[in-house]
Amino acid sequence: MNLSREAALERDADDPLAPLRAQFELADGLIYLDGNSLGVMPRATAARVAQVITDEWGRGLIGSWNTAGWMQLPQRVGDKIGRLLGAGPGEVVAADSTSVNLYKVLAAALRMQREGAAGGPGRTVIVSERSNFPTDLYIAESLAEQYACTLKLAASPEEIPAALDGRTALLMLTHVNYRTGRMHDMAALSAAAHAAGALAVWDLAHSAGAVPVDLNRDGADFAVGCGYKYLNGGPGAPAFAWVRPDHVSRFKQPLSGWIGHAAPFAFTPGYTPAEGISRYLCGTPPVLALAALECGVDTLLAAEPLGGLAAIRAKSLALTRLFIALIEERCAGHGLGLVSPREDAERGSQVCISRDGAADGGPGRDSGAYAIVQALIARGVVGDFRAGDPADGLPDILRFGVTPLYTRFVDVWDAVEHLRQVLDSGEWRQARFHQRGAVT
Amino acid sequence: MNLSREAALERDADDPLAPLRAQFELADGLIYLDGNSLGVMPRATAARVAQVITDEWGRGLIGSWNTAGWMQLPQRVGDKIGRLLGAGPGEVVAADSTSVNLYKVLAAALRMQREGAAGGPGRTVIVSERSNFPTDLYIAESLAEQYACTLKLAASPEEIPAALDGRTALLMLTHVNYRTGRMHDMAALSAAAHAAGALAVWDLAHSAGAVPVDLNRDGADFAVGCGYKYLNGGPGAPAFAWVRPDHVSRFKQPLSGWIGHAAPFAFTPGYTPAEGISRYLCGTPPVLALAALECGVDTLLAAEPLGGLAAIRAKSLALTRLFIALIEERCAGHGLGLVSPREDAERGSQVCISRDGAADGGPGRDSGAYAIVQALIARGVVGDFRAGDPADGLPDILRFGVTPLYTRFVDVWDAVEHLRQVLDSGEWRQARFHQRGAVT
Repeated sequence: MNLSREAALERDADDPLAPLRAQFELADGLIYLDGNSLGVMPRATAARVAQVITDEWGRGLIGSWNTAGWMQLPQRVGDKIGRLLGAGPGEVVAADSTSVNLYKVLAAALRMQREGAAGGPGRTVIVSERSNFPTDLYIAESLAEQYACTLKLAASPEEIPAALDGRTALLMLTHVNYRTGRMHDMAALSAAAHAAGALAVWDLAHSAGAVPVDLNRDGADFAVGCGYKYLNGGPGAPAFAWVRPDHVSRFKQPLSGWIGHAAPFAFTPGYTPAEGISRYLCGTPPVLALAALECGVDTLLAAEPLGGLAAIRAKSLALTRLFIALIEERCAGHGLGLVSPREDAERGSQVCISRDGAADGGPGRDSGAYAIVQALIARGVVGDFRAGDPADGLPDILRFGVTPLYTRFVDVWDAVEHLRQVLDSGEWRQARFHQRGAVT
Repeated sequence: MNLSREAALERDADDPLAPLRAQFELADGLIYLDGNSLGVMPRATAARVAQVITDEWGRGLIGSWNTAGWMQLPQRVGDKIGRLLGAGPGEVVAADSTSVNLYKVLAAALRMQREGAAGGPGRTVIVSERSNFPTDLYIAESLAEQYACTLKLAASPEEIPAALDGRTALLMLTHVNYRTGRMHDMAALSAAAHAAGALAVWDLAHSAGAVPVDLNRDGADFAVGCGYKYLNGGPGAPAFAWVRPDHVSRFKQPLSGWIGHAAPFAFTPGYTPAEGISRYLCGTPPVLALAALECGVDTLLAAEPLGGLAAIRAKSLALTRLFIALIEERCAGHGLGLVSPREDAERGSQVCISRDGAADGGPGRDSGAYAIVQALIARGVVGDFRAGDPADGLPDILRFGVTPLYTRFVDVWDAVEHLRQVLDSGEWRQARFHQRGAVT
């Protein structure tokens, strides 16, 4: 691999996805490597949301529930998201938060098991992994209490298959780990869950729009995901839920609000769930937020004529491979270590780096990761820091997400060059002392 | 009461709240009497949301979670809503939908009872009324199933006190009925619930911003409400939740997402709820929607120097009294009947009318209400229709909400004049035949 900056510029010139960057508003000089936390604003969003506010709400008022299609927004945006997930029309709804949607699908899945619909009754264990995103574990903890289940957390991805047995009700995993970027094999782990008589529940927070997902082919039973990361839906955007068509109408979810009713406007006192994925809706659709989310999803669908998610994935891997190669060549001797998997098949769309604080005679075992991230932000290179947990043997992490719709090869080159300069100059030590008092 | 149009214009000229109408975008000639379904757009909203999108998200990106105060939005907007509810700072959060928030507080309340914290264990009945808004009954039905409770529905408001007994866990009521506008006496019914050893859960969907509410004084234990009606937060705006400070940290709610955690960014695998109302949060705050909601709530807080909710309530009653008097004087002989209470103390901020279809030799017993509402909408008078239920003896209803921030006395006069003309001319019969095929 040619690791020169010129080679990076040439790859950008040859990149078929390069025109898609014009969909976004990005300040000159900014290298944004945090799209896995909050996606960048699409240029179309402000005008579309203004139109919804001024025309549809302001002028159309209550009539817009019908005339502007507001009532169908959860399904319309859901269908668009479904195209990124191997899900057909009518299989996905956009609604609520990831946490709330996870509650719905976990409850539906546990109810399936309790009623003997899958592996049979008497299954009282939810298997997940200790490094899963905390909100997933918190929601599972709540449902475990409610359904008299226990939560069994594998200490590492390798230990997951062995954790599955005849007592397992559900396997609940986040497809791409938020800290490390490690990606599970959805097909293999769903199959392992099924072989044990369990159901497979997937959180696609760091997958949707970033890596190809094929929920139907790969045997997922339930899935949820986030609208504000790679889907570019805006801060706190609505999330989504998918349920395998075989299961979708067989079980009620407990957040039985009126919008999930078979006939919401009949105003009948008893709850009858809608057929299909609409029963996974609860309250009134958040129209402004769904309009913004739709703009974000459209930025990904714009890649369809250019090769779609396969092309996005190919570029993502090329970007992360370049990132890793550059770090190892240009930042050698600073105690950096690769935390993300080196194998393409196991790596999502991010690169995570640790740092051994003893490498340069730094103060004690402090990794310096927090201060280094701050020094990079001060230079316009936005990644993020995730604190480690010594008790778990987890190192502090510098996390860099790549988003092929707007990340260029030269951005990766420049980011690593900034990192090299920060490390070589030691400026991060000042950054640390300067920043530690601030809320960051 | 002088019922002339001139008198109405004079009352508008004397109205201390009249300047507040300029906060809203209202088309010339539009008489909008549906603010109890979807509040009108404040003029400030589009610019504020554009600023959040373009500046805070577009330029500030991930840093805006701290620098733009996004993390505090649920509490900041909640505190503002609290000022309309007799709730102190830190007592309210804005989040999720009304249905989702109701699920949280009902679960917390049932848990209190199950653990013997209120009237003692063994209480397995949720009392509500049959005419409560359906989503409230659906959510209660779900929790009743989960907690092995039954739902007991009073057939009329008068029967509620007698429905409370030593088996009652909760009394769950909507303060102002969505169909009839009938308002409960919160203090008396909360006291009746407490006397029976039950907890009082109030839905303020048609109260918040419309009538004075004093949750602490009036003995409510839990409350939720809607952001898109009288709070003018926009279609599907976030809702809110309040918990009596005595109870707030005593029980967990089951939607235990990371934003309700004591330390969301510590990323610990076990759930520890935040102290106080923040534990009633779940997923990532919906920033765009919360910004729009804040603009809506601000339109009400702008009334504080002009007398606040007491002044809003006084005008609301004056508007609905005028509405009733005009209907009875000017639309006599058309079979109209008042469904809303005539007593001020029992009437929210709406007037509901039924029509006896036999009154004018109309076709059978068809009330004509649907067609009359359509004919009024065609004339720019926007109210809404709610179908009756013959099995329950509920008539079809023409529903007209008044919103003192933007409804003028002359609007009421003109609305009734349009109604008179629609009835006198019989044009609604054409409207009915014309409209019945359309989605409305």
